[in-house]
Amino acid sequence: MHANKSLTEPTMIIVMDKSATKEMVDHVLNIVKEHDLKPEPMYGTTRTAIGVIGDKTKLDEGQVIRLPGVKEILLVSKPYKRVSREYQPENTLVKINDDIVFGGKKAVIIAGPCGVESEEQIRTIAKGVKKLGAQMLRGGAFKPRTSPYSFQGMGVDGLKLMKEVGDEVGLPIVSECISTEHLDAFDKYADMIQIGARNMQNFDLLTSVAKLGKPILLKRGMSATVDEFMFAAEYILNAGNKNLVLCERGIRTFEQSTRNILDLNSLALIKEISHLPIIADPSHAAGRYDLVTPLARAGLAAGADGIIVEVHHKPDEALSDGAQSLTLDSFEEFMKDAPQYHHHHS
Amino acid sequence: MHANKSLTEPTMIIVMDKSATKEMVDHVLNIVKEHDLKPEPMYGTTRTAIGVIGDKTKLDEGQVIRLPGVKEILLVSKPYKRVSREYQPENTLVKINDDIVFGGKKAVIIAGPCGVESEEQIRTIAKGVKKLGAQMLRGGAFKPRTSPYSFQGMGVDGLKLMKEVGDEVGLPIVSECISTEHLDAFDKYADMIQIGARNMQNFDLLTSVAKLGKPILLKRGMSATVDEFMFAAEYILNAGNKNLVLCERGIRTFEQSTRNILDLNSLALIKEISHLPIIADPSHAAGRYDLVTPLARAGLAAGADGIIVEVHHKPDEALSDGAQSLTLDSFEEFMKDAPQYHHHHS
Amino acid sequence: MHANKSLTEPTMIIVMDKSATKEMVDHVLNIVKEHDLKPEPMYGTTRTAIGVIGDKTKLDEGQVIRLPGVKEILLVSKPYKRVSREYQPENTLVKINDDIVFGGKKAVIIAGPCGVESEEQIRTIAKGVKKLGAQMLRGGAFKPRTSPYSFQGMGVDGLKLMKEVGDEVGLPIVSECISTEHLDAFDKYADMIQIGARNMQNFDLLTSVAKLGKPILLKRGMSATVDEFMFAAEYILNAGNKNLVLCERGIRTFEQSTRNILDLNSLALIKEISHLPIIADPSHAAGRYDLVTPLARAGLAAGADGIIVEVHHKPDEALSDGAQSLTLDSFEEFMKDAPQYHHHHS
Amino acid sequence: MHANKSLTEPTMIIVMDKSATKEMVDHVLNIVKEHDLKPEPMYGTTRTAIGVIGDKTKLDEGQVIRLPGVKEILLVSKPYKRVSREYQPENTLVKINDDIVFGGKKAVIIAGPCGVESEEQIRTIAKGVKKLGAQMLRGGAFKPRTSPYSFQGMGVDGLKLMKEVGDEVGLPIVSECISTEHLDAFDKYADMIQIGARNMQNFDLLTSVAKLGKPILLKRGMSATVDEFMFAAEYILNAGNKNLVLCERGIRTFEQSTRNILDLNSLALIKEISHLPIIADPSHAAGRYDLVTPLARAGLAAGADGIIVEVHHKPDEALSDGAQSLTLDSFEEFMKDAPQYHHHHS
Repeated sequence: MHANKSLTEPTMIIVMDKSATKEMVDHVLNIVKEHDLKPEPMYGTTRTAIGVIGDKTKLDEGQVIRLPGVKEILLVSKPYKRVSREYQPENTLVKINDDIVFGGKKAVIIAGPCGVESEEQIRTIAKGVKKLGAQMLRGGAFKPRTSPYSFQGMGVDGLKLMKEVGDEVGLPIVSECISTEHLDAFDKYADMIQIGARNMQNFDLLTSVAKLGKPILLKRGMSATVDEFMFAAEYILNAGNKNLVLCERGIRTFEQSTRNILDLNSLALIKEISHLPIIADPSHAAGRYDLVTPLARAGLAAGADGIIVEVHHKPDEALSDGAQSLTLDSFEEFMKDAPQYHHHHS
Repeated sequence: MHANKSLTEPTMIIVMDKSATKEMVDHVLNIVKEHDLKPEPMYGTTRTAIGVIGDKTKLDEGQVIRLPGVKEILLVSKPYKRVSREYQPENTLVKINDDIVFGGKKAVIIAGPCGVESEEQIRTIAKGVKKLGAQMLRGGAFKPRTSPYSFQGMGVDGLKLMKEVGDEVGLPIVSECISTEHLDAFDKYADMIQIGARNMQNFDLLTSVAKLGKPILLKRGMSATVDEFMFAAEYILNAGNKNLVLCERGIRTFEQSTRNILDLNSLALIKEISHLPIIADPSHAAGRYDLVTPLARAGLAAGADGIIVEVHHKPDEALSDGAQSLTLDSFEEFMKDAPQYHHHHS
Repeated sequence: MHANKSLTEPTMIIVMDKSATKEMVDHVLNIVKEHDLKPEPMYGTTRTAIGVIGDKTKLDEGQVIRLPGVKEILLVSKPYKRVSREYQPENTLVKINDDIVFGGKKAVIIAGPCGVESEEQIRTIAKGVKKLGAQMLRGGAFKPRTSPYSFQGMGVDGLKLMKEVGDEVGLPIVSECISTEHLDAFDKYADMIQIGARNMQNFDLLTSVAKLGKPILLKRGMSATVDEFMFAAEYILNAGNKNLVLCERGIRTFEQSTRNILDLNSLALIKEISHLPIIADPSHAAGRYDLVTPLARAGLAAGADGIIVEVHHKPDEALSDGAQSLTLDSFEEFMKDAPQYHHHHS
Repeated sequence: MHANKSLTEPTMIIVMDKSATKEMVDHVLNIVKEHDLKPEPMYGTTRTAIGVIGDKTKLDEGQVIRLPGVKEILLVSKPYKRVSREYQPENTLVKINDDIVFGGKKAVIIAGPCGVESEEQIRTIAKGVKKLGAQMLRGGAFKPRTSPYSFQGMGVDGLKLMKEVGDEVGLPIVSECISTEHLDAFDKYADMIQIGARNMQNFDLLTSVAKLGKPILLKRGMSATVDEFMFAAEYILNAGNKNLVLCERGIRTFEQSTRNILDLNSLALIKEISHLPIIADPSHAAGRYDLVTPLARAGLAAGADGIIVEVHHKPDEALSDGAQSLTLDSFEEFMKDAPQYHHHHS
């Protein structure tokens, strides 16, 4: 199933400075050889560059850029490994239960409020979205908020409440963990654990959550590159957890007419370069409810394996993110023809 | 059809500095009144702000920010007018001929090479895309290139050639005009004139092309905000030309795994705030052929009124943009189910 | 010293939708009054906007945007408080000892390696930079790394080692804390605790570190806005710790010729709007050693209260960030005329 | 003075797809040889990459990326030539007259209003800034404006007026040309011709202005990369005009607390890689007058060869850009200690 690790390829090009001496070039050639790699020097009259051939995990860019006379490193292969399609060509399937499989032919729809606010609220919304075809329930119990003066969530009680309602209604739940302090509660109550955008590079949290072995939903940081996103995923796979679903939720750009820009270029690219399932979050990308449905459809058309969307029965009374929540009526409209827009990337 | 111009609304808030004196506040109040607008002062103990009510074209932000004691201007209404849905609620329809109407129920597909290279090339591609259902032919005769050492296009001969082949095959043509020097040729040979992303704020060119009265395809600058895009369109409407189709072609961001990011947030937003048709260009947004089809589908699902896509019969021999061109085979695959993904925004 | 909390000012403008009914407007007016604030409605024929006057902490943007008929909120005052110059006009001074005061007339220079690697390394560098005039020693014991395969630091041992060497040489130390697990060690060994760019919105960490009461160096996230940066600082002040120094370390943009862009616009702006000291980190902004000195000088000229810079005696053998470290020789050259470039913002 | 054109170096790496056949690889090797270049293949078991050694102008990236089996091109050398320090190691000096030399030891200070508004205005400002030490007079006669409803400048009359006043006061003038229609007027009246940020890639204009042979001030586009900026400069040098001064004026980023971000990373980098003089424009970068002086000082400290700054005797009455103009008093304060901050990059 996995690529043979002894396969070799050109991994990086070490570009020497024009002022580099022959001794400096020879030193680099030796270092490359010491790492069990084959150097392939290209000599010009003004500058030398050195190709490196072998196994890409054997030498880190950072170990070479510091050598005397080295100007720049060009990477031929990306240095991440386990997340890539070259490592595993076929789609990873993440199963929540027999009916819910991320990465399969059917898009998975996750719906629910931004935050759990009360038993009545979460039950009403859960029943509503279940009836309309949602397969999982979302809701935040711990809310990372820009301002210390904003609502910070119901905490463990909220998580427990959500699990009870989810079981009652028949919807597995996904909720965000923001601290290693709460690992036990998430292990007990969550069906899938979300790592939020702000914590995509909280490596301590990534590794700790991964070790629980539960399905994880990893959101892309709002200005994380595709490479950084892949590396964050690599931390999780590297900790032994393969039940990983990625989530594109909009990136920060100069354009601020809408809150973020849903980056479907990267979503489509990730379907090419990685075997992991990836879903789209049109609510956080849009920041305003009237753009959520067009962006959800666009995500499905671009090849997303599912959609996570904020739905509230009374968005004008929500304690957070009301501006971007669909009502149950507008969620119904979206669900009506959602499958028509979905393109499955096999 | 158009909104009554005497209608009034709060247009801007003039925020005074905490150090502003009573005289400064009164001076601003007078200036507002002199422009036939009603000021609505809000006095706090530490700061005053002044609301302005009336017709938004009567006072420019720039005329107020310079007044003594003024700290900041908050715009309540956007200062552009003719492009907005508030000015004209119903969709503008741009007709190329009886069958080709931008802004109507059917998405318009424009296909063709990046640049016209030879008679044989443009004829082969034109015939190919026509057969597969394209409605218009694209192709550059004048190419604005980052490097002075790259292929700059066939010029007027290329335009003429394209028109001949378009007529022969039955495809109206669209091509980019990069200089006022070529207005006559475009007037004579082009069915629709493209203003490219680099020239979106070349106001001289916008106005001159607009005055020809022909249908225009205006591409968004690669780092133009939605507001700047709307204003560029306003230049064209203001010059008396309403045959305007907008085009989202990807924006420049920190993410450089793909060339640009197709900004469907802004496309969906523009469908809300403007009556003008807007299409998507997945080729320039992607920069690589394998992402073109997913992004084209996503554009249609987000509500685009059409797609402009680069197609080449031999992309590996194209003189420009070969990397992002679809082959005729992959264009066929896209066309097969394109209508299924299209959502018409009425 | 502090502003009187009963002072009032216009805090936000609630822009109603054109379709909002009279009932919706009246409902908003009531909500504003219920929060002990004064609404100031501005009626146009097509749209109404409502000014809000009073104490800005009484009503959160998020509580209003969800009300029926509300289109948009424009903020007149920023919602953060304790960090602003309006709250405290005079510069905060953060004292490390009698000689080292951030925010005073003399710029504080912090130097040292990216990471602590060995006793010999940290001692050589510490002695070197002390001799050349550095006032504090920097060095990472815990390194958050993009790749799970990179060097992750020496941990608590590294921190302890750094403290020993710092005491020996006469340099207080600053080091980054990346997890609440290590609070005890930092409390014991660090003279100043750094919160890194990736953790600027790790609110759990911010609050926990703040409660130790020690001086904190808070780095701006690489794509955090000034407002988000101010709010992160507000979390720390709000937790009762006023010994806070900010650090601008470069932002992520479309431009990738250098690693990040040192944002001196924001640094100069923050000197205007906040009383907190702020220093510049040219090493991480540049990513390459030859640009560090020009950027350090520029930071001082723009009004930075200090510089934190990476220095290594043998950068070509460093285990991380060698490419951007100054040698002791180039650090000497910088130190020679650094004071000439410094502008103190009083 | 110039580098010998027969010198060779590794110029690009052609990375083949994993699926590329031996025939595809051989085809690429042949193409490289046909262009008089030496291919250096690096064979791995899963992928091949091909180094190209020789003269970098002989083969364009675009000609290779389209070849069958090619995945990606990595550039070892930048494809621009005449602008680079490798082509000409010593600083280019652009002389306006015997006293004013860009690129020499003394920073050149250019000051004046955003736009020429009246004879009295331009004369008052010109006299004022001359007295305070400015060496050249700036002022716009043609203003490219985002909105069609804003003040568009006095046109040729404004240019003529500025020249008369400049001669009278003893200040050579620089003004922006926005259209090839006005070449004659600029040839007659301008001492230095500015190409504005919006026109940095208006290649038609670049070449036409270059051919006049006069000194040119080329502003970086607000989201142009350093490479694109270098290529725009290459268009001018390539048209035979070496009297070129570059200008960094702020880039567009996610951060919008200030209008643009002055990119001193790129300014410092350009001093390394190019022999052309480069100045900084703190007014457009800041967008607000209180940040202009800190940014001007920072620009000088980073190695700028001069500063161009907006000064108005009555900024609150200016027809454009009043918010960012210094008064004569604040300009005086800046001029007092400006030389202290300047670092000359030799």
